Amino acid sequence: MAFLLEEYWAERQNKFEVLLERLIPLSEPFSLFEAMRYAVLQGGKRLRPLLSVACAEALGAPEGVVETAALAGCCVELIHAHSLVHDDLPCLDNDLLRRGKPTVHAAFGEALALLAGDGLLSYSNKVLVEQLKDRLEPSLLLRLSNELSTATFDMVRGQVADVLHEGKEVSDEELSFIHRHKTGALILAAVRAGTLIAGGESRLEEADVYARSLGLAFQIVDDILDETATAFELGKTPGKDRDKGKATFVKLFGIEGSRIEAARQVETAIQAVQSWPHPEPLSAIARFVVMRKH
Amino acid sequence: MAFLLEEYWAERQNKFEVLLERLIPLSEPFSLFEAMRYAVLQGGKRLRPLLSVACAEALGAPEGVVETAALAGCCVELIHAHSLVHDDLPCLDNDLLRRGKPTVHAAFGEALALLAGDGLLSYSNKVLVEQLKDRLEPSLLLRLSNELSTATFDMVRGQVADVLHEGKEVSDEELSFIHRHKTGALILAAVRAGTLIAGGESRLEEADVYARSLGLAFQIVDDILDETATAFELGKTPGKDRDKGKATFVKLFGIEGSRIEAARQVETAIQAVQSWPHPEPLSAIARFVVMRKH
Repeated sequence: MAFLLEEYWAERQNKFEVLLERLIPLSEPFSLFEAMRYAVLQGGKRLRPLLSVACAEALGAPEGVVETAALAGCCVELIHAHSLVHDDLPCLDNDLLRRGKPTVHAAFGEALALLAGDGLLSYSNKVLVEQLKDRLEPSLLLRLSNELSTATFDMVRGQVADVLHEGKEVSDEELSFIHRHKTGALILAAVRAGTLIAGGESRLEEADVYARSLGLAFQIVDDILDETATAFELGKTPGKDRDKGKATFVKLFGIEGSRIEAARQVETAIQAVQSWPHPEPLSAIARFVVMRKH
Repeated sequence: MAFLLEEYWAERQNKFEVLLERLIPLSEPFSLFEAMRYAVLQGGKRLRPLLSVACAEALGAPEGVVETAALAGCCVELIHAHSLVHDDLPCLDNDLLRRGKPTVHAAFGEALALLAGDGLLSYSNKVLVEQLKDRLEPSLLLRLSNELSTATFDMVRGQVADVLHEGKEVSDEELSFIHRHKTGALILAAVRAGTLIAGGESRLEEADVYARSLGLAFQIVDDILDETATAFELGKTPGKDRDKGKATFVKLFGIEGSRIEAARQVETAIQAVQSWPHPEPLSAIARFVVMRKH
């Protein structure tokens, strides 16, 4: 029987929405929590928690362990939301539209967007430790906390490299550094978290190959969509990366060359986890990443 | 023999500088690490690591444990540096001068200042876990990680409350919320970290009273200095809080009333730790906080 990704994803996405909503209850000062909830809730594909869960399931983890992976994945999603809020600020991408809605600073002002982004970052580790401390051994939870902080810091390294290369020629290696860090780090963290929570220490190298190839494919497709999609499809302003003279795969390899490279990365990702007990969702997610329109 | 705070502080401050320098080695992309190092090194009283160390020493901890407390305190210092970088940004305090030098965004541009601040925040937890994992039990280190994230998030809550009350009348309770969170949270975290690392679980309530009173006194004196000191003394632009219509103690109680309240808080702090084995440094730090000129 063919695996139905859409159904699989939608079902889990609903669970993530409930989880995320529960993880950020309104408290004082309300404006801060409202801005954080606005940044996180009602929108987003939830790719990162989905990857954590799909890894745990791929390793045959029981329901309770999959739930733990979902919680860890939602913490990665909080960090992802943090990065989007700060990325959209005037001093970086200066974007007013995200997921078809005004960005956080467009809706709440710049000061609150800056602080809500900071809040989401510290909150993610707070929530990780508090939610998982009765579910995991302290040493494993500590390792996850370190993995997530390292991934966040790596993401920042990628963002800085991206800013530094704006309007400049970039080499193959520089572009790879940017994307491996900027988009790749959190995807890697989500995949590794799900794998580690499911006891898949021995599968970690395969998980890394899957995550790195998927992350690269994801970013290549992002670059293609920035050139070819409409604002309605994207939910954000297209063509901005090109206009800002950003380093993109399309600039380096052209649209057709980028499509070929993305397909190649997806194949590598799928191969990496082929020997896992239940690899279908992970394979389907990888295939989806190059088919998506937004 | 009288306790000489100046000597005690200077000796430890030198150690913190070496530690902090070592914790942020230059790596790629260099601009990010340069901005982070600029934000952290060569400046600052290092009050937070000093408090961690003084608490461990006050409880009679051996040298190795005091070193562990110093490392944890330096992680709090990284978070403190993060908050200063973001506070100085144009959308918040819009300050060009900090510790007598151009602020990070004045020296490196806004994009890099934003990202260096984000970097310091994720880096602080990464460093905490990596540096202390061979020194502490996983469960204690996990608790510290949670304490520091919670304190950071509380600090953000205070910053937001501060922003929301700009130009408005504030009540006694609102001002107390702002300062207990904005300045108080990291001071509390530094004190609790040093106490917990030294095995002072049973002293935690006293530590909390000490930290809360000290934090409040510190903020009251900050407010007084913002009104009375010169830019040379402060190393930053004075009068800015008043000009922005910020909620301050001076606005609420006047300069003389604020001085009396600060002295009262310092007395409470000193009393709280009086029964500890070696409370002299903690008492002297508390007394210094109300005497300082910058």
